[in-house]
Amino acid sequence: MNIAIAGLGLIGGSFAKAIASKTRHRAIGYDRDPEVMRRAYDAGLLDEVGVERFTDADVSLIALYPGASVRFMRENIDAFKRGSIVIDLCGVKRRVTDDVTELFKPRGVTYIGGHPMAGRELSGFAASIPTLFEGASMILTPGADIDPDTLKTAENLFLALGFAKITLTTPDHHDKMIAFTSQLAHIVSSAYAQNPVVGEFDGFAAGSFADMTRVAKLNEHMWTELFLLNADYLSAQLDVLIGSLARFREYITQGKETELRELLRRGREIKESLNENYKPPAV
Amino acid sequence: MNIAIAGLGLIGGSFAKAIASKTRHRAIGYDRDPEVMRRAYDAGLLDEVGVERFTDADVSLIALYPGASVRFMRENIDAFKRGSIVIDLCGVKRRVTDDVTELFKPRGVTYIGGHPMAGRELSGFAASIPTLFEGASMILTPGADIDPDTLKTAENLFLALGFAKITLTTPDHHDKMIAFTSQLAHIVSSAYAQNPVVGEFDGFAAGSFADMTRVAKLNEHMWTELFLLNADYLSAQLDVLIGSLARFREYITQGKETELRELLRRGREIKESLNENYKPPAV
Repeated sequence: MNIAIAGLGLIGGSFAKAIASKTRHRAIGYDRDPEVMRRAYDAGLLDEVGVERFTDADVSLIALYPGASVRFMRENIDAFKRGSIVIDLCGVKRRVTDDVTELFKPRGVTYIGGHPMAGRELSGFAASIPTLFEGASMILTPGADIDPDTLKTAENLFLALGFAKITLTTPDHHDKMIAFTSQLAHIVSSAYAQNPVVGEFDGFAAGSFADMTRVAKLNEHMWTELFLLNADYLSAQLDVLIGSLARFREYITQGKETELRELLRRGREIKESLNENYKPPAV
Repeated sequence: MNIAIAGLGLIGGSFAKAIASKTRHRAIGYDRDPEVMRRAYDAGLLDEVGVERFTDADVSLIALYPGASVRFMRENIDAFKRGSIVIDLCGVKRRVTDDVTELFKPRGVTYIGGHPMAGRELSGFAASIPTLFEGASMILTPGADIDPDTLKTAENLFLALGFAKITLTTPDHHDKMIAFTSQLAHIVSSAYAQNPVVGEFDGFAAGSFADMTRVAKLNEHMWTELFLLNADYLSAQLDVLIGSLARFREYITQGKETELRELLRRGREIKESLNENYKPPAV
């Protein structure tokens, strides 16, 4: 197949590297930064460059921030081949899906919302790695009327690139879950790091502090956009966590030993019950 | 030297294993569970067992929960040799130091509060490993009147066991910092896991979720004790974090894009500014 990638940052770059190292597909790449496009081409990751070449693509992967993703698809709507599949990879799915689905339909192009459950606390092409998706879940939010063969083509592509599984869901359920599993984690991490005593952490920290603050090293431009496009679910999640922390605070200040132990026990049992297989790639 | 260890759980067991694998010191061990004591002895980690043998020790390490640690030192006060050093390793230092310092003084025994900045989300002798302390910081909270040679003996012992550095501080500053770097992280992790949608996480999670919930798998008996003995500093830390999360919530629900981006930028810059060297041991 011919696979086009718009945006050669951490995600798009890692897709280009995974395609080159794990498949025999041809890759077409575009980045608004010509220097990045050249570097990817010179590294042998791309067979062709430029949006005008997307017309050859059987599958187009849009690896841009949400707003840029919608703009790119709108502005280049005629660049996508009839019968091809377009998958955007940004981290919110309701808004993007609502904005573009009807654009593609009359053109015979299948749009699928996607979200690779993989990342690093770094961004840009330089941070991209071919193993980023190994063992990870690829979320797809296809329309209910999707052609089964078309969906299978997309699923097989992601499995060939290293993903361990495909998670099919709706844009709404995606956004609800991602508010909890990813967006809230990034906010907690950022909030945690912004503490009056953080500068004195050295010598007083072990693994839990490193874990808690790892993703505070985020790209504030992308995450601001993602958070605001998922404000309803995300603020509900913040309410849940703040409420839970307030309960801990109450038990601790009031010396409610039994209740505190019970609350900690419940957290431990929940964590132990989770069937966690995914391990981030060692770099 | 002869080194006694009271409590052969994750920390005490790891000290026994580190002493056996990295030094030529003799080890004396005690655990309230005779079966654990036998296993450590049979594994060749201990030269002698039983509290009554602590009288031979030049350094005694007390690796028990805070309350049990104080009780052990009180009840066995005559078991510690004149001129020897006793170091308790539990995770709060004000209360323990206040309770035992004056007990030891008239007996010519030097008490030092200690806290190894290392751990695993597991507990008990079976989870102990000889490399637990590698690269970690060993916190010591000696009295202002400590003999410099005695302190040097203790410092050298910990450096020989794999610690990368010694952090000298007061019990008060220890408890203040640990409320932030460790205790708060364990509460956030437990609170994070206790979410109505957590059961549906599978397929929607990547590294940030795993990191955020790792230490929810804690020992609720030990941590309840630690939290309640540090309630003042810990509740202050919970207030800071809840306040910070509430600000994020405000910016997100009110669509304050500039303020949100600025807040995230600050978190990123803080995280990037931290000089983090410690990596938990790969097991």
